[in-house]
Amino acid sequence: MHLIVINPNTTASMTRLIGESARAVAAPGTTVTAVNPDMGPASIESHYDEALSVPGLLAEIARAQAGEQAADGFVIACFGDPGLDAARELAHGPVVGVAEAAMHAASFLGRGFSVVTTLGRTAGRAWDLAERYGMTRFCRNVRACEIPVLALEDPESDAFAAIVAESRRAVADDGAEAIVLGCAGMADLAARMTEAVGVPVIDGVAAATKTVEGLVAMGLRTSDRAEFAPPLPKTYIGLLSDFEVVKPDIC
Amino acid sequence: MHLIVINPNTTASMTRLIGESARAVAAPGTTVTAVNPDMGPASIESHYDEALSVPGLLAEIARAQAGEQAADGFVIACFGDPGLDAARELAHGPVVGVAEAAMHAASFLGRGFSVVTTLGRTAGRAWDLAERYGMTRFCRNVRACEIPVLALEDPESDAFAAIVAESRRAVADDGAEAIVLGCAGMADLAARMTEAVGVPVIDGVAAATKTVEGLVAMGLRTSDRAEFAPPLPKTYIGLLSDFEVVKPDIC
Amino acid sequence: MHLIVINPNTTASMTRLIGESARAVAAPGTTVTAVNPDMGPASIESHYDEALSVPGLLAEIARAQAGEQAADGFVIACFGDPGLDAARELAHGPVVGVAEAAMHAASFLGRGFSVVTTLGRTAGRAWDLAERYGMTRFCRNVRACEIPVLALEDPESDAFAAIVAESRRAVADDGAEAIVLGCAGMADLAARMTEAVGVPVIDGVAAATKTVEGLVAMGLRTSDRAEFAPPLPKTYIGLLSDFEVVKPDIC
Amino acid sequence: MHLIVINPNTTASMTRLIGESARAVAAPGTTVTAVNPDMGPASIESHYDEALSVPGLLAEIARAQAGEQAADGFVIACFGDPGLDAARELAHGPVVGVAEAAMHAASFLGRGFSVVTTLGRTAGRAWDLAERYGMTRFCRNVRACEIPVLALEDPESDAFAAIVAESRRAVADDGAEAIVLGCAGMADLAARMTEAVGVPVIDGVAAATKTVEGLVAMGLRTSDRAEFAPPLPKTYIGLLSDFEVVKPDIC
Amino acid sequence: MHLIVINPNTTASMTRLIGESARAVAAPGTTVTAVNPDMGPASIESHYDEALSVPGLLAEIARAQAGEQAADGFVIACFGDPGLDAARELAHGPVVGVAEAAMHAASFLGRGFSVVTTLGRTAGRAWDLAERYGMTRFCRNVRACEIPVLALEDPESDAFAAIVAESRRAVADDGAEAIVLGCAGMADLAARMTEAVGVPVIDGVAAATKTVEGLVAMGLRTSDRAEFAPPLPKTYIGLLSDFEVVKPDIC
Amino acid sequence: MHLIVINPNTTASMTRLIGESARAVAAPGTTVTAVNPDMGPASIESHYDEALSVPGLLAEIARAQAGEQAADGFVIACFGDPGLDAARELAHGPVVGVAEAAMHAASFLGRGFSVVTTLGRTAGRAWDLAERYGMTRFCRNVRACEIPVLALEDPESDAFAAIVAESRRAVADDGAEAIVLGCAGMADLAARMTEAVGVPVIDGVAAATKTVEGLVAMGLRTSDRAEFAPPLPKTYIGLLSDFEVVKPDIC
Repeated sequence: MHLIVINPNTTASMTRLIGESARAVAAPGTTVTAVNPDMGPASIESHYDEALSVPGLLAEIARAQAGEQAADGFVIACFGDPGLDAARELAHGPVVGVAEAAMHAASFLGRGFSVVTTLGRTAGRAWDLAERYGMTRFCRNVRACEIPVLALEDPESDAFAAIVAESRRAVADDGAEAIVLGCAGMADLAARMTEAVGVPVIDGVAAATKTVEGLVAMGLRTSDRAEFAPPLPKTYIGLLSDFEVVKPDIC
Repeated sequence: MHLIVINPNTTASMTRLIGESARAVAAPGTTVTAVNPDMGPASIESHYDEALSVPGLLAEIARAQAGEQAADGFVIACFGDPGLDAARELAHGPVVGVAEAAMHAASFLGRGFSVVTTLGRTAGRAWDLAERYGMTRFCRNVRACEIPVLALEDPESDAFAAIVAESRRAVADDGAEAIVLGCAGMADLAARMTEAVGVPVIDGVAAATKTVEGLVAMGLRTSDRAEFAPPLPKTYIGLLSDFEVVKPDIC
Repeated sequence: MHLIVINPNTTASMTRLIGESARAVAAPGTTVTAVNPDMGPASIESHYDEALSVPGLLAEIARAQAGEQAADGFVIACFGDPGLDAARELAHGPVVGVAEAAMHAASFLGRGFSVVTTLGRTAGRAWDLAERYGMTRFCRNVRACEIPVLALEDPESDAFAAIVAESRRAVADDGAEAIVLGCAGMADLAARMTEAVGVPVIDGVAAATKTVEGLVAMGLRTSDRAEFAPPLPKTYIGLLSDFEVVKPDIC
Repeated sequence: MHLIVINPNTTASMTRLIGESARAVAAPGTTVTAVNPDMGPASIESHYDEALSVPGLLAEIARAQAGEQAADGFVIACFGDPGLDAARELAHGPVVGVAEAAMHAASFLGRGFSVVTTLGRTAGRAWDLAERYGMTRFCRNVRACEIPVLALEDPESDAFAAIVAESRRAVADDGAEAIVLGCAGMADLAARMTEAVGVPVIDGVAAATKTVEGLVAMGLRTSDRAEFAPPLPKTYIGLLSDFEVVKPDIC
Repeated sequence: MHLIVINPNTTASMTRLIGESARAVAAPGTTVTAVNPDMGPASIESHYDEALSVPGLLAEIARAQAGEQAADGFVIACFGDPGLDAARELAHGPVVGVAEAAMHAASFLGRGFSVVTTLGRTAGRAWDLAERYGMTRFCRNVRACEIPVLALEDPESDAFAAIVAESRRAVADDGAEAIVLGCAGMADLAARMTEAVGVPVIDGVAAATKTVEGLVAMGLRTSDRAEFAPPLPKTYIGLLSDFEVVKPDIC
Repeated sequence: MHLIVINPNTTASMTRLIGESARAVAAPGTTVTAVNPDMGPASIESHYDEALSVPGLLAEIARAQAGEQAADGFVIACFGDPGLDAARELAHGPVVGVAEAAMHAASFLGRGFSVVTTLGRTAGRAWDLAERYGMTRFCRNVRACEIPVLALEDPESDAFAAIVAESRRAVADDGAEAIVLGCAGMADLAARMTEAVGVPVIDGVAAATKTVEGLVAMGLRTSDRAEFAPPLPKTYIGLLSDFEVVKPDIC
């Protein structure tokens, strides 16, 4: 089985970290390819960034499907789950977002979780996703450390300590019984954090990888009956003309 | 007051129709400019199309704000309200989507409305928006005529008759007390339809124009306190490098 | 266009203030008449007061409709939106309440608002209205200053300072991105408060005036198909016999 | 224990029927007095009628509390539960509405009930009440027979047959496991209907009588801590000046 | 009328207290028999305990129905309302749980209540029940005193003081207008607590007794139309073979 | 990794089928042991059956944990997910129910699914579970074929045809984009049905197996912080005395 894990921002070092996190949990026989777009923002910290990450993300799906090695399923590895609906129309195999997978996984492990994320301005998006996935009833809080996404990679930063501290507050004040890491860039922290915080800590990259792997193992893919049928062919112009759906490298 | 009404698809004839509908209800002293992007899909009939309409839409906002005549507010004139969150971050004045405005207006006129739209595959998006805006309790049904968006403009098509027939079914079977037109391309039909169907029929282009006009008249604009603060500056690469936020033509 | 703004309590000085606030935002060509009933409570601070404000409110609608100058639409200018359903049955044009309009307007400007109101005992009513209008998801909190309604008019009172202080707490503690003023008697404070608090502050009198004006401009009125059809004729006795629906001065 | 059952309309024959239905289920030692206002509508079939029934209803509570025989609790015997919040502020003992009590009782007897009521235009009010009481999850449907309230009393009418037929459709099509009678004027039908329809049929007058009786037996009354504290004294003018709260015959 | 009040744990002293509380509010002519199972846990403080209390509870219903004196209705006297659905299938008369009855009763007395219970680990169950009964909108909080169930009976314990203190916090911090006692073992505290806390305090044993008594008085019983029809006959083996439904001592 | 799949009824042939379905999707390196209790009902078709399946289910978890080969995770293989909360307290590894896993999986594949189950009387339980898991928004309908659970195994029965027919109705009438099989006894039908119905068909046994396997692979287990901490030690008497928690073969 071949899974494509797409980091929708254009920072290659984060793509490497995400790929390693996915491979660390993949079953024997599962190959993981981690990619990122060649267009768009270096990090995703606003609705604006998120909207502009989607064209590159969709291009990566199209590219993977046009490649030699079949892609059996896709992970969108940014906690805003950008472009998930569009990706499901375009992709031949199942697509799962890391927020989606992490929240679902957390719901199996306790009555409520809190999300611990980077910037407070993204909390609204996390709540929107919780609602969309039916996870509002499990989501106790969305807490921000006010650490920019790219600062997570800085070994000098005190990001780990800040995330642990916020997670402990979530346990004490929100009654959280699990913590969901609110950024794909935190993917390498889950194990250390579970130990530090004393409740299960869920990394969405790992969770989404296992979720897609499970769907593929069961022979399941996105329903193409109505909403998620392939996009209709039509004219695209200007800067985005390569996204025109009639072109065989797209769909 | 100067309002920009953005048709997010690239079909200029639809842009003209939308502009006329907006101007028909604007108050004395309100100027309406209708525009469409120079990149992206000719019509929006899938999540894929919608996602790829957003860069062009955002570019139009940036262009209007860089222009000589101040833009006091913006209307997003596609019933999927694409890019609304991102637009609110970017725009200096208030931004309202046509689905948003139409659903709110309908909620003032009766206990429940049905949306009558083009293709059934877009119904999920309409339900998502109803939820986001708090309008689920008023939305009785989302009904599709299975008419492609661009066919609405074809004088040979029986689009009007089909939309009236579906609206009558909404009144009879859903108990709808009002009808919301589910496509900005239907903007010119509202008055004729109100007469034909016997309940209020709401066109979102008109509703959004009046809503933005009202917000501007009250001196209100999007809160920039947290979620909708301007996008953070950062590197954008590749095809989308012009969207980099540091550039003065963007924000 | 002629709009009637009804202050449902019997305090004429508040009616004057409300009229001025409505006229301050009305478009060129819109005439606003502000009235109050000649029966009922001097202020509305309980469910009891509110219930007993409704007969006088309905009498004002009937009177306006029996008058020489056509009334195109109505605003109910008390934050409890008393008698809104009954008014919609009786009125020939659209009717909007100030809580309704303010909450909707706030929902266009940020993810969440808090209501800042007079007495804590009215908070339940504000929550009920938020639910009815689908605005619960936007309403972060309802906060009371414990200032009686009529004290708002007292220039000696520290009402403005108290309302600003409570609003700042809403921003800091509730994460409110906008403030909704919870009493029509605060209508003159919105602009000063926006400056003092740093987020959009919405006065329902202005918001409802613009909302009704917009509906009238679009040619829309309350659906008379089912729930809001005119009241059925029938016998009324005793003190309220003048409300009998067959009488031409009522409907 | 002395309970006051108030029919909020002014039709004395219906008051007698309601009194008999209440007394039929009252426990030994419980006295029931059935009254109706001396002002207001002969039947309640619109929001307008309902709003105008409330002053008379409140006057009856005040009168009962000013009388020689203490009133231990109150039933509001109209399915719209008019004035319930105001009544709770005014009354010294607990107050329960018939819709409220019937819906709660039905929730103890099966997964879902349907309401069978008189006119379709009142269905919205029934849904509003279901939501307010938390009973939306149990309420499968609100069905109307389109029988005017006062026609229920006409022995020539086929009201019983129509209500049974609609109830059977509720069982077959809604999956209703119980039926709630949607008008206090149907109070005498419950037993015959249970037999005819084959599922529990609940009359709100009986249900509310037992509910208030139970609350009084437990020594419980409306909390006067905040929202339902007695109305504040203030000036009332004009036709409604007798409702001024300082007057001892009111509170 | 003969009501069976079942304490689902096996502690006879608590059964006596519960029986006394039920009898204290029963109407003239109502006989109350309080029983407990002869199998299962001494107290119910976890999902595990609760699940294992159900067989004994069901056996008590079967035993009562096989006895000489008809059982007209049943109360399940543990705040987790264990086995309520199964009991409704098995019992010939209505069945009400103490959490169910207490929450419903509280909803008649104020806008919101808090539950004050024993151990924090049971709070999730209380929230689940609030949701199931439609009472989430009234339930402000579930607060635990961290007192084990059986310690409630210890005259040396400071249970009463702790429960009063927690209830006062509920009033002050949650805005609770009523308190629901979250354990059947607190049944004797309601009257003293109402005095100490200043808002209505509801004991579920009393509330459920009056609720079932009311249903029986109205001739109502669980609908046997679909979900709560009697269990289907089938083979039971091993330790639980006596529960096989064909056996006449069960159903 | 060693997973225990527990069929909570006592029919061994169904246990074999369930075990095969689980093993068919397990990853290399995952061992599946399928077991069933030695006490309780032969099939689970009512709340009564379900309640009485739980002691045996819990005994199987205790037995597995006392065995020589560590159990890393558990599947509860009955669509009512009986005893899930209690099992999470008792089990050392994660526990997932088949309804839970199937509904979550379906939510990744389309906007809405319908459940197709055996007897209509169990539909209420399926809706309860959908709510508990946050899946109500995805669950379009619960449809019953009125086939008894054990008839699924009868090769003479037309069960497959009936389930396909009902599933096709779900697609056509409910707009279901996926089908969830509503009984663990249907576990072998998913692949054939996906082909016959044309939308993804999800078997909960496979879905739960992959879900638990994924959780174990990520090193995640049920949070023991509060609600799902191990049961407290206490006295158990009578028929169920072996369930006393102090005994080392239980926990």
